Amino acid sequence: MKYSKIKALLESEKGGIAVATRGWVRTFRNKQFIALNDGSTIHNIQCVVDFENTPEATLKRITTSAALDIQGTLVESQGSGQKYEIQVTKLEILGDSDAEKYPIQPKKHSLEFLRENAHLRVRTNTFSAVMRVRSVLAYAVHKYFNEKGFFYFNAPIITGSDAEGAGEMFRVSALPFDGTPRTEDGKVNFKEDFFGRETNLTVSGQLEAETYAMALGQVYTFGPTFRAENSNTSRHLAEFWMIEPEVAFNDLNDNMDLAEDFIRYVIKYTMENCADDLKFLEQRLIDEEKNKPQAERSEMALLEKLNFVLENNFIRISYTEAIDILKNSKPNKNKKFQYLIEEWGADLQSEHERYLVEKHFKSPVILFDYPAKIKAFYMRLNEDGQTVRAMDILFPGIGEIVGGSQREERLDVLIEKMNALGIPEEELWWYLDTRRFGTAIHSGFGLGFERLVLFVTGMTNIRDVIPFPRTPQNAEF
Amino acid sequence: MKYSKIKALLESEKGGIAVATRGWVRTFRNKQFIALNDGSTIHNIQCVVDFENTPEATLKRITTSAALDIQGTLVESQGSGQKYEIQVTKLEILGDSDAEKYPIQPKKHSLEFLRENAHLRVRTNTFSAVMRVRSVLAYAVHKYFNEKGFFYFNAPIITGSDAEGAGEMFRVSALPFDGTPRTEDGKVNFKEDFFGRETNLTVSGQLEAETYAMALGQVYTFGPTFRAENSNTSRHLAEFWMIEPEVAFNDLNDNMDLAEDFIRYVIKYTMENCADDLKFLEQRLIDEEKNKPQAERSEMALLEKLNFVLENNFIRISYTEAIDILKNSKPNKNKKFQYLIEEWGADLQSEHERYLVEKHFKSPVILFDYPAKIKAFYMRLNEDGQTVRAMDILFPGIGEIVGGSQREERLDVLIEKMNALGIPEEELWWYLDTRRFGTAIHSGFGLGFERLVLFVTGMTNIRDVIPFPRTPQNAEF
Repeated sequence: MKYSKIKALLESEKGGIAVATRGWVRTFRNKQFIALNDGSTIHNIQCVVDFENTPEATLKRITTSAALDIQGTLVESQGSGQKYEIQVTKLEILGDSDAEKYPIQPKKHSLEFLRENAHLRVRTNTFSAVMRVRSVLAYAVHKYFNEKGFFYFNAPIITGSDAEGAGEMFRVSALPFDGTPRTEDGKVNFKEDFFGRETNLTVSGQLEAETYAMALGQVYTFGPTFRAENSNTSRHLAEFWMIEPEVAFNDLNDNMDLAEDFIRYVIKYTMENCADDLKFLEQRLIDEEKNKPQAERSEMALLEKLNFVLENNFIRISYTEAIDILKNSKPNKNKKFQYLIEEWGADLQSEHERYLVEKHFKSPVILFDYPAKIKAFYMRLNEDGQTVRAMDILFPGIGEIVGGSQREERLDVLIEKMNALGIPEEELWWYLDTRRFGTAIHSGFGLGFERLVLFVTGMTNIRDVIPFPRTPQNAEF
Repeated sequence: MKYSKIKALLESEKGGIAVATRGWVRTFRNKQFIALNDGSTIHNIQCVVDFENTPEATLKRITTSAALDIQGTLVESQGSGQKYEIQVTKLEILGDSDAEKYPIQPKKHSLEFLRENAHLRVRTNTFSAVMRVRSVLAYAVHKYFNEKGFFYFNAPIITGSDAEGAGEMFRVSALPFDGTPRTEDGKVNFKEDFFGRETNLTVSGQLEAETYAMALGQVYTFGPTFRAENSNTSRHLAEFWMIEPEVAFNDLNDNMDLAEDFIRYVIKYTMENCADDLKFLEQRLIDEEKNKPQAERSEMALLEKLNFVLENNFIRISYTEAIDILKNSKPNKNKKFQYLIEEWGADLQSEHERYLVEKHFKSPVILFDYPAKIKAFYMRLNEDGQTVRAMDILFPGIGEIVGGSQREERLDVLIEKMNALGIPEEELWWYLDTRRFGTAIHSGFGLGFERLVLFVTGMTNIRDVIPFPRTPQNAEF
């Protein structure tokens, strides 16, 4: 007999047919009702066992997470909460699960505990929903860029270039710590390393993507990036996936338009294709927040929040306007900010971003035209000589979700900035070549994929939206 | 005026309209005809300059790879080889390209030379075609699995697990070589490293993917993997992208069916969506092989070869049958093989695989049921106690493109094998949990993405199908 996925069975057009399916037990009650799940959907299918004609020994083996092969008749269900259930005619236990030893009991576990069992947590409703949403979001990313005529560009992960300065890097090496080859003056001789030079894990594929944008027109990366910063927060991972589109001939406004259109598209696609999972996650968040004081609860339910993003343009204001708002804000005047905003040029902290997004505008915000001195060397200098064509998109509850800019396309200005910052030209000879040969304005941004998944799922710790999180002191599995 | 991509202009429904476009000069001849390309298609659009009314100084700046902004009228073309060309009314030079200094002249360069200019080679016809095909193939991968109800799973890149033994690993560390922290007995103290343990770059996401398949049912990875082997060949990269589907309840036959169906789907999709690029690459290969002796030329042209794969089932034979064929083969009897096949149990070398695929069957071949002792510990032992349910797919000109297996689902057999190989159980406690709790048969495979791109593009060196190749002594850019 052909096996069907549970999702397909629950969406069946008619009952009364012989069916077969396989999956794992979520719960078993009254020696009769198995809630079976196979990962294809958040919903379990109820399998009704003829317990009077089933050996007691078999019934005892129907425990949480046991793998079953079920055959029977699909019938309309009265009580299971689903349209259909299976009247079981044949039941085979494929793999047992010792109820005494199985770590995840059918009760509520802390997210912390589940993180320690990251290989099993995806068997819970919450994590299976999160990981399905993550998968659908990732597909939406590729679908969007494909429809817009972008080409997928795989930036190198191991890089000899460390000039961008986006963050601390992990070293990649095949050299031993004991008996490390040395040069005559006692330094590590990286010429004897695998790549014949010092290499690191990439912090961003942007510079390489720019070389491709200047030939293929519009490209995007979607791959892992790394930061060796010792940030033990709910918003940082040492290994995370980043999406970096780069477009020739786009200015900063085009760049903002692209980012907004992109974010809306992927959220809309996910709402259309993950409705059940999002509904579950919305309810989960409501339940979780019941125990919190009113002031700490989300102002909008999950789907309402996502719809808000679809239906409202992001607020666009310049850094200079933002500073004015912040200077005159209550928390600044009452000295409630940890870092008080006193003058133009200050780097914005998370507390300031949150104030703008969550209190002042109550909307996603795009800040643009930042002071040059607090931004990266490759950003396009404005005519004022003070600000650069940078933009950050700030989301409620998440903070910065996108960072981007129009790139400095003028060779002389770029070299001047690199010199001022001590970035050696010979390190980035290939990057400078894009400005030497057929330069043109171009723009791009980076979006941290896990922050997007956080926002869409309503989860609050970034470790809960990637299968096996890498953080300081943690690389288990 | 709205700017159009050159691809859209060439596919325009009518001429006689005002258009604007931007791109880079490929060639400029007779002070009149610019071949302009913007990366959206292999084809250039001819832009006809009114040279009598254009300053000589401007004409001189129209050099290979200069960036131009062109406005004019789209008209039917007589001579350009395309349906349309642009009669230029306004021409702006966005970025110059000094013809004396630009490394890639409008002539044939060696692939070797172009590799040293990997940041610019994508501006050539060959590499832009290869990279567009790569992008479309990647999209087809996601599309296929999405349509089949798979979930995209991001395996960790940095891993504390090194038990699989698929190859040499790169170490990832934030510890310094000078003043490395040491334990009391003088060993490197990895507890003080970023992750509190020794970590490496992953060689495969399979083991982690298995934990997800046993919850979500069917998952796939598509991400970078790494091998620190000093293999300076045209088929090996130190950093490459791998696709690894893993499916609960699939046996080895299902696994072979999936691999065949998958490969056919992505090739078909790419042929439908990259026809122009593939036609160009086919001609390129014919031109390249003109200088070779007849015996070394491809037996089929590129598209014919791809069609052959679409229309013919792969030959499936057991390892045992393959050994019989090889033992009795001419090159074995005449001692032409470097490694003669003398008895069952021999590991197959590239020369044997090529003989089977290119000489004996002249077709892709799936070999299955290999001797247990030459395959990995996690493969399902057959009832004969000698062979495992492994399968390799061998492609003409490429060799192994897929390696897969049904996984050993029996806890006791798996532990026994790990013990025999000295793999510590405590290293893989989480992997063993999938067999402890609700185990079931399952299968999967790994497909090296660059080898697939090689096959589809007809390129012969794997360094030419990834943007910035990483190989021994080479991590430039």
